[in-house]
Amino acid sequence: MKDFVVIGCGRFGQSVAKSLYAKGHDVMAVDIDPEKVQNISDYVTHAIEVDAMDEAALKAIGVRNFDVAVVSIGSDIQASILTTLIVKELGVKYVVAKALNDIQAKVLYKIGADRVIFPERDMGIRLAHSLVKNNVLDYIELDPNYSVMEITALKDWEGKTLKELQLPTEYGVNIMAIKCGDDVNVSPYAEDVIKRGDILIVIGNTENINKLGEDD
Amino acid sequence: MKDFVVIGCGRFGQSVAKSLYAKGHDVMAVDIDPEKVQNISDYVTHAIEVDAMDEAALKAIGVRNFDVAVVSIGSDIQASILTTLIVKELGVKYVVAKALNDIQAKVLYKIGADRVIFPERDMGIRLAHSLVKNNVLDYIELDPNYSVMEITALKDWEGKTLKELQLPTEYGVNIMAIKCGDDVNVSPYAEDVIKRGDILIVIGNTENINKLGEDD
Ligand SMILES: Nc1ncnc2c1ncn2[C@@H]1O[C@H](COP(=O)(O)OP(=O)(O)OP(=O)(O)O)[C@@H](O)[C@H]1O
Ligand SMILES: Nc1ncnc2c1ncn2[C@@H]1O[C@H](COP(=O)(O)OP(=O)(O)OP(=O)(O)O)[C@@H](O)[C@H]1O
Ligand SMILES: [Ca+2]
Ligand SMILES: [Ca+2]
Ligand SMILES: [Ca+2]
Ligand SMILES: [Ca+2]
Repeated sequence: MKDFVVIGCGRFGQSVAKSLYAKGHDVMAVDIDPEKVQNISDYVTHAIEVDAMDEAALKAIGVRNFDVAVVSIGSDIQASILTTLIVKELGVKYVVAKALNDIQAKVLYKIGADRVIFPERDMGIRLAHSLVKNNVLDYIELDPNYSVMEITALKDWEGKTLKELQLPTEYGVNIMAIKCGDDVNVSPYAEDVIKRGDILIVIGNTENINKLGEDD
Repeated sequence: MKDFVVIGCGRFGQSVAKSLYAKGHDVMAVDIDPEKVQNISDYVTHAIEVDAMDEAALKAIGVRNFDVAVVSIGSDIQASILTTLIVKELGVKYVVAKALNDIQAKVLYKIGADRVIFPERDMGIRLAHSLVKNNVLDYIELDPNYSVMEITALKDWEGKTLKELQLPTEYGVNIMAIKCGDDVNVSPYAEDVIKRGDILIVIGNTENINKLGEDD
């Protein structure tokens, strides 16, 4: 099991800390705000009130002993950068830092962050995607052009066999699995019939998959 | 094409608005803060400074004409609730609202929100997931027990054929595709050999897939 320190317990940091603890890991949560510390204390191993820009204080609480640090300080860019620098210097091997924009991300990488994330931006992109294509429930981007998508069967498709849909030949899209209620069919046959409410897992060129979508 | 109004241009709202506009949709962005309006104006169709709690003002800018409203006001819970109520009453068919916690979400649904989202919480869960299982790059949850996952090939697997891995028989996990550099192999054979850096798309019971993961 890895041990985690989460520094900055805003909404994002809180969620990371609670999720890791719920998965059975040791989690120390750090925040400068006593209320934030109080709120999270029941959901992590330790919750401590510390200013993360204070190197001596981070050292004193044993930050070096953690396998992974998540620096989830948002608006205070200076604090996020300084904290990342300090935890890296204290010897934490893997440091993930939250950034608000590309410039901050660049600085964070330069000073040693191993991964930089943009929670709000990424969720914004995900929401936009799902709003535009009604039948896309979720997706994995394999590269800029290629995706795996979870889509609901279009009305047009109901009662048709996979063969009749001709997705591979007409769109270059392959059906990998069909979910029907609680059953997941991972080796669909050409003769299988699409039913109302079926969910398909497809793989192919992202634009081509999007062409399948209902866009009204 | 649908038309969107995004109310509240924080980090999340900005990302939603820009993404929708980049996909070719008409987007009106609204914020009470002139600086936020200024910042987003080059990336959307219209950007307008309005207090969204002012029903007459929302009416005047023609909010009723939009197909979808995204209420992405964060910290000010009262503003988020009032705004959702007003846009629903003005007749917007589909309203997505951002919430900070479950209680706020309940209220938002009660007053007519069609979808409530928690951007920071959801990204926190996603990050926790990817930190714990090093080889999971991304995933689609099909139901509470079943997932499609994008995973990097484990070191153990390199040089082995799919048949030798015995994922279906040993773990009940099916390999749907293998990504190797820019190539995606969507119909892998039992004799295909896993190479260093290969990315696999697998489907199966979530716990079983996680058992494949490198933990440490
Ligand atoms: N120097 C610091 N040391 C420790 N914690 C800090 C420090 N500066 C800020 N924080 C904490 O970081 C947390 C996140 O900061 P903030 O609320 O500004 O970010 P945010 O990006 O708006 O968060 P979210 O959207 O995830 O709620 C807050 O709880 C804040 O108290
Ligand atoms: N009454 C209102 N009318 C219009 N816009 C508003 C109103 N109240 C707040 N906003 C705007 O909503 C936006 C988002 O609010 P806030 O920054 O509190 O949310 P947040 O959840 O911290 O955002 P994020 O994490 O996405 O940056 C801000 O740009 C703010 O100016
Ligand atoms: Ca360990
Ligand atoms: Ca991805
Ligand atoms: Ca936020
Ligand atoms: Ca999903």
